[in-house]
Amino acid sequence: MTIVTLMTDFGLKDGNVGVMKGVILGIAPHTQVVDLSHLIMPQNVREAALILARSAPYFPPETIHTAVVDPGVGTTRRPIAARLGTQRFVGPDNGVVTSLLEYAEKQGWPLEFVHLDKPQFWLPEVSNVFHGRDIFSPVAAHLANGETLQAVGTPITDPVRLALPKPHRTPTGLRGEVIHIDHFGNVASNIRVEHLAEWLSAPEKLTVHLCGAEIHGLVKTFGDRAPGELVALLGSTGNLIVSVVNGSAAERLKAKIAEPFTVTGIQ
Amino acid sequence: MTIVTLMTDFGLKDGNVGVMKGVILGIAPHTQVVDLSHLIMPQNVREAALILARSAPYFPPETIHTAVVDPGVGTTRRPIAARLGTQRFVGPDNGVVTSLLEYAEKQGWPLEFVHLDKPQFWLPEVSNVFHGRDIFSPVAAHLANGETLQAVGTPITDPVRLALPKPHRTPTGLRGEVIHIDHFGNVASNIRVEHLAEWLSAPEKLTVHLCGAEIHGLVKTFGDRAPGELVALLGSTGNLIVSVVNGSAAERLKAKIAEPFTVTGIQ
Amino acid sequence: MTIVTLMTDFGLKDGNVGVMKGVILGIAPHTQVVDLSHLIMPQNVREAALILARSAPYFPPETIHTAVVDPGVGTTRRPIAARLGTQRFVGPDNGVVTSLLEYAEKQGWPLEFVHLDKPQFWLPEVSNVFHGRDIFSPVAAHLANGETLQAVGTPITDPVRLALPKPHRTPTGLRGEVIHIDHFGNVASNIRVEHLAEWLSAPEKLTVHLCGAEIHGLVKTFGDRAPGELVALLGSTGNLIVSVVNGSAAERLKAKIAEPFTVTGIQ
Repeated sequence: MTIVTLMTDFGLKDGNVGVMKGVILGIAPHTQVVDLSHLIMPQNVREAALILARSAPYFPPETIHTAVVDPGVGTTRRPIAARLGTQRFVGPDNGVVTSLLEYAEKQGWPLEFVHLDKPQFWLPEVSNVFHGRDIFSPVAAHLANGETLQAVGTPITDPVRLALPKPHRTPTGLRGEVIHIDHFGNVASNIRVEHLAEWLSAPEKLTVHLCGAEIHGLVKTFGDRAPGELVALLGSTGNLIVSVVNGSAAERLKAKIAEPFTVTGIQ
Repeated sequence: MTIVTLMTDFGLKDGNVGVMKGVILGIAPHTQVVDLSHLIMPQNVREAALILARSAPYFPPETIHTAVVDPGVGTTRRPIAARLGTQRFVGPDNGVVTSLLEYAEKQGWPLEFVHLDKPQFWLPEVSNVFHGRDIFSPVAAHLANGETLQAVGTPITDPVRLALPKPHRTPTGLRGEVIHIDHFGNVASNIRVEHLAEWLSAPEKLTVHLCGAEIHGLVKTFGDRAPGELVALLGSTGNLIVSVVNGSAAERLKAKIAEPFTVTGIQ
Repeated sequence: MTIVTLMTDFGLKDGNVGVMKGVILGIAPHTQVVDLSHLIMPQNVREAALILARSAPYFPPETIHTAVVDPGVGTTRRPIAARLGTQRFVGPDNGVVTSLLEYAEKQGWPLEFVHLDKPQFWLPEVSNVFHGRDIFSPVAAHLANGETLQAVGTPITDPVRLALPKPHRTPTGLRGEVIHIDHFGNVASNIRVEHLAEWLSAPEKLTVHLCGAEIHGLVKTFGDRAPGELVALLGSTGNLIVSVVNGSAAERLKAKIAEPFTVTGIQ
């Protein structure tokens, strides 16, 4: 039973996600459809890219990830599909696959992209404003039914990539930025476990700086400190995060996406 | 594998939707349960009617749509089920099926309604306040298992219908009203593609009037204008809508349900 | 097809619930995964306990309920699993199972608890901050695949229990407290149908007192009174609740969790 995941910025009130599932199950009745998120900030391709990259590796081989955050729907932006190792992707060619693609490249996964240009795999009528329903859902369903990438599109080698911010070295540490704020108010940076590797044996020497706060040392988990304390730690996908134990760091620090997030204490 | 869709005003925090799924899967384990929406405005039967009508046509034949927006639960309002062409409906007899019924009538679909009056297809204990769990979910599951409408109820021919507002002609155009505001803040009217058909060859001659704003011409899709611009276009289900590119028209115009929404430029 | 339910305080925007489903379906592809709620108030183990207890009895035998409201993740708190009659539970040993356990004890269901201490049933890498993904989802999936409790853990007899407030008799009635406020703003108390049993034949003699309001008599359902009226009634799971017909009692009365909720008129 193939899994098709859905990620959109559609919200949950208007029925649009249900309609996509109706289309998929009409074409591929034995699919397991799994929601990744439908609360991506409207038109926020960068947030969608992040959620996709950190979720996809936990899905079984041959899963098809459908990501519809698509401000360019109905314009000349291409609809595309891809294979990244054992995972597959269907969505607009607007960079939403960037972070997963970077991850796949690091892993050395085989890559393959196609432009979805075969209308026989779409709904008979295609609107200008809802390709999630009219193109991406039917294509995902046909892939779940066993169609190959080559059948549903024409090979391309130039998918759009976002220019995502990378952390850089400073004389005493690393300067990154805030890339995600989660439901709990945990503030995640683009500084990752692999950037910190050589210093993690002495985490007490590190200091994290965010929105005027200084946090000395890293903890292993939230419960290592009392409720209400500000802590820094490695999050569940390897990013350095700042949290308030049983509270919201984002609210406490008024942190926002793209805010500087730095580490010092590294020589 | 039969699909049962669920639409309610229950929200997502209290577990009630999960309980309905537990009841359905206990009776009909091979059902695919799909959420349409659980964020219908509390007791807003008209909003539920709209979401149901625009979603149901995208589901495969024999899908059973369960709609539980039910301010009259436990009173004398009847529980009903229906067949509308290849689609089926289970829910309260309060008009929630009206828009889908009007659509079915336009399509010439065969129609069949029953009053659910056979307690052997309900849970053994029926509360006065949660027929979604105690009557509608078990009946939907028995239908998914192959029971006929005639088995689970007694034929009726007078389902309750809402009196839904229709647009009307003015000397220079059409006067409709706002019937839906979506997650993005797009403002949808009851003026539809079929009302505009003869003028769509020259959409630049039309002007849309909403909350004091005048929008000249229709665009094909959001990306036809710069972010922040106010545009009018046909939405994904054929209704005339007003949007702000990458923004919220509802917020910009302070638009509300039932607000006048007019088109001029039609002779 | 075994059902695995998921209840968390993760919210719906970050993809974490989807990741748990990916892990489960990777190990046990034929599982039906059902969401109970992902909008438990952050770290609110008591609210999760309530939702679990009132939902689990509606699921078919052998369902596995996974509850991840887990402020102690990564500390010394044990991961556990349990059998309670025909239902099963997987989650942290922090009391989240208390209300379901109390219900099971009243029903006389057989009980069995294990400490999850066999890493071969977890993901290969276990983070300190996301045991929902790394321990609880894989264990639930292995149970769905037919592993026994004894296989995945070591028997224990001392699961953590919350000290939950119980209503007590007063000279003229019962004094309880508010334990839940639902999506509609209905205010539920810990006074239950079984506490009121002998007086329910004359419900007009009862008076409910909440936040300064007095409500005389109980109604059978919301529609027994006009929209806007304050009413008291038995909710769908047998708790005494206060509602505003087609409105929000919580908003009207500014009711909060733990507020006194009393009944008089009982001799």
